[in-house]
Amino acid sequence: MTTTPSPSDPADAPSVASATSAPPPQVTVLPLTGLGEVREGADLAALLAGALAPLAPREGDVLCVSTKIVSKALGLRVSSEERDAAIERIAVRTVARRLHTRVVTSVVQIPSGPVMAAAGVDGSNAPDGPLLLPEDPDACARELREGLVARLGVSIGVVLTDTSSRIWRVGVSDIALGAAGVTSLEDLRGGVDADGRPLSVTVRNLADELAAAADLVKGKASGIPAALVRGVPGATGVDVPARELSRTGADDWFRRPSLESVWAALGLAPEQEPIARMSPEPAEERIARALEVAALPRPGAPPFLSRAAAVRDRSGSTHIVVERADASATALADAATLAERVRTALGAESLGEELPQVPVLIVPDPEEDPR
Amino acid sequence: MTTTPSPSDPADAPSVASATSAPPPQVTVLPLTGLGEVREGADLAALLAGALAPLAPREGDVLCVSTKIVSKALGLRVSSEERDAAIERIAVRTVARRLHTRVVTSVVQIPSGPVMAAAGVDGSNAPDGPLLLPEDPDACARELREGLVARLGVSIGVVLTDTSSRIWRVGVSDIALGAAGVTSLEDLRGGVDADGRPLSVTVRNLADELAAAADLVKGKASGIPAALVRGVPGATGVDVPARELSRTGADDWFRRPSLESVWAALGLAPEQEPIARMSPEPAEERIARALEVAALPRPGAPPFLSRAAAVRDRSGSTHIVVERADASATALADAATLAERVRTALGAESLGEELPQVPVLIVPDPEEDPR
Repeated sequence: MTTTPSPSDPADAPSVASATSAPPPQVTVLPLTGLGEVREGADLAALLAGALAPLAPREGDVLCVSTKIVSKALGLRVSSEERDAAIERIAVRTVARRLHTRVVTSVVQIPSGPVMAAAGVDGSNAPDGPLLLPEDPDACARELREGLVARLGVSIGVVLTDTSSRIWRVGVSDIALGAAGVTSLEDLRGGVDADGRPLSVTVRNLADELAAAADLVKGKASGIPAALVRGVPGATGVDVPARELSRTGADDWFRRPSLESVWAALGLAPEQEPIARMSPEPAEERIARALEVAALPRPGAPPFLSRAAAVRDRSGSTHIVVERADASATALADAATLAERVRTALGAESLGEELPQVPVLIVPDPEEDPR
Repeated sequence: MTTTPSPSDPADAPSVASATSAPPPQVTVLPLTGLGEVREGADLAALLAGALAPLAPREGDVLCVSTKIVSKALGLRVSSEERDAAIERIAVRTVARRLHTRVVTSVVQIPSGPVMAAAGVDGSNAPDGPLLLPEDPDACARELREGLVARLGVSIGVVLTDTSSRIWRVGVSDIALGAAGVTSLEDLRGGVDADGRPLSVTVRNLADELAAAADLVKGKASGIPAALVRGVPGATGVDVPARELSRTGADDWFRRPSLESVWAALGLAPEQEPIARMSPEPAEERIARALEVAALPRPGAPPFLSRAAAVRDRSGSTHIVVERADASATALADAATLAERVRTALGAESLGEELPQVPVLIVPDPEEDPR
C-alpha cells in the first residue's frame, strides 16, 4: 500500500478546498461614460443611474464621483470676483497663506474636515465660474446613494472625491470627501497578519484608496467624472462617513506650518502674519521679516519702546542691534524682550533653510551698566 | 434630397470616429498569488515572474510590490533589540517623537525621501525580526524591473509600495517608495481640461495612486504582497523615480510639528526636546513643559540666572513668576529674556489645544524700579 494520500484522503482536504475555492478577488475600476455636462438642477442620481446601467452594478460596488459634478448640480457657484471672499467665508481656520508670483493661495480647513488649498474652490472644468464644495459632502453622498439604490435596486457604496495635495508628497491625488455605505476606515485592530502576528498597522483608510483607484480612470482632463470600483472585499460592510477621515484638533500635530507655528507662539494674530513666498526667499528678506514679526507686541501688550535693526558689518555678515529707549529698567526689560523675540523669529526662518548665524545684541550692553 | 448627412459625409466623421474608437479604458487590479514566503537570498524577479505568468503581463502593466518582500529577499533584518538603534542610524532627520503608553515612536525622514514612522521599520509579517527598508528603493525597483522584463519579454513598470500614515488623515494607506519605468508624476501643465480651460491642478502623483489601487487587493493581512495594475493610460510612458515624489528641504512647509517647530526656534537641540504624548495632555503638564523648555539656554548662551515658576492663585488660575536673581541690569535682562521665552513656549502649547490665559510676570516689577 502506498503512503501517497489519495485525492479523497482527509489529510488532503485543505488544499483541495483551497484549490476549488473562488480565485482571489480582482478589482476592476470602470469609467462611467456618456454623462455629458451636468447642469444646475440636474437630477444627479438619475443621470448616474443611467450611466451605471450598462455596467450592471452589483452589491458591494463603490461608485466614486468627483464632487465637482455634485457642486454643479447644486449650483454651488460664485463669480470670479467673489472667489476670495467665498474662500474666507468657508474657512473654519487658515492653516497657511503663500504667495506664488502675485497670487496668494490660502490653505484652509473646510467645514467637513479636510485641509484644502483655496478651500477646494476650483476654476478648472467650471466655465461658468468657480465651484464651491458642498458644506456636508457626507450628506450629499448619502442622498445620492439613496437615489441610486432606489433606482438600481442594488446596495452600492458612494464616495465623493476631490483632488488634494499632501504635505511631504509632490503631486496631487484624489481623496474621499464624502462617503455613504462605504467602509471608509477598515479596522484591523485585533487582527493578525498572514503569519498570525498582531498587526501593528491598525486602521486602513479604504475610502482614500478607493478615491485614488477611481482617479486612475477618471483622470483630470478626461471628462469622466465618475468610476465604479468593483471587487474590493468588505468595501461596503460598515458605513463610515468621510468626516471621520480627517485628523483635526489636538490630534493634529501639524496645525500650522513651521513658520506660522512660531509666529502664532509669538502672539501674532492670523491677520498680522506676513505671507511667505512659495519660491525660495533670500536670507536678507527672511531676516527683515523676522524683525518685523518680532516687533509686533503680543495681544494686550504695549508697543515696544526699543527698536531692532539689522546691521551689516565689513565682513558682509549681519547682526541685529536692539537699542534701549532710555536708561530705565522698563526700557531694558523691553529691549531684552524684543531681542529674545528676534532670536526666536530668526530661529523660525531657519527651520526650512538654515540662515547664517545672526547675533542679537542689546545696546548699550546691560553687562556694562553700573549696578 | 435629404439634408441628413450620410455616414460618409465628412461633417459626420468625428462622431463616427469616436463611436468606433476603443471603449474608455478600464483598470484592473490583479492579485499575485502563490508566491509563498519570500526567504533571504530568494531571486525575487524569478519568483514574481512565475507568479505573473498566469496573468499574461502586457506592455503598460504596472506591478506593485510590497517593499517588505524586497527587504525579506535582501535579508534586511535586525534583531528586536537592535530596532531602535537601527531607526536612529537610518534617520536623515527626526521630524517628531511621540509617546504612546510607554513606547516612543520616532517619525523620521528616511534616506530615499519619505517621512515615515519608525523609519518604516516594521515588525508585522516578519516573524524573524523587524525588517528594514532598502536604502535606495528606486534602485531595487529598477533591478527588479530589469529581471522581470528579461524573463517576461514585455515592458512593464514596477512600483515598490509601503504603508504610510498621512498628516491630517486618519488611517494608513499605501504610497510609492520606489519606481522604475513608471510615470510616477503625470505632468498636466500646459494641458486643458475637458472644457478646454487651462488645468489649475498640474501634476498628478500617479505612482501613489497606483500603490493605493494595488493595496485594494493586497490588503494588510491577506498574504498577497503584489498586484498587477492593468489599463492605466500612460502609466509607463515616462520613467520618473519615486525619489521625486518627496517634498523636502525649503519646499516643505511642515519641517517639524507645530510644537517642535517652536522649540527649535527657541534654540533647543533635537536631543533636548521633551517627548510629547500622543494622548491629550492636561493643561498643568503642558505649562510645566513650557517652563522646562523656556529655561534651556540657547546654544552658546549662559544658563539663566532667573527662575520661572508656576503659581496657582486662589481662584484656581495659574500665572508664571520670573524672579530676578539680583538688582543688576544683567539680572533684569536675563529675567526679561526668560519671561519672553516662557510666553512663547506657552504659545506653542496652545497651538494644538488652547491653554487658559497664563500671565507671565517679572518680580520685582521693573516698572517700579528707581530710575
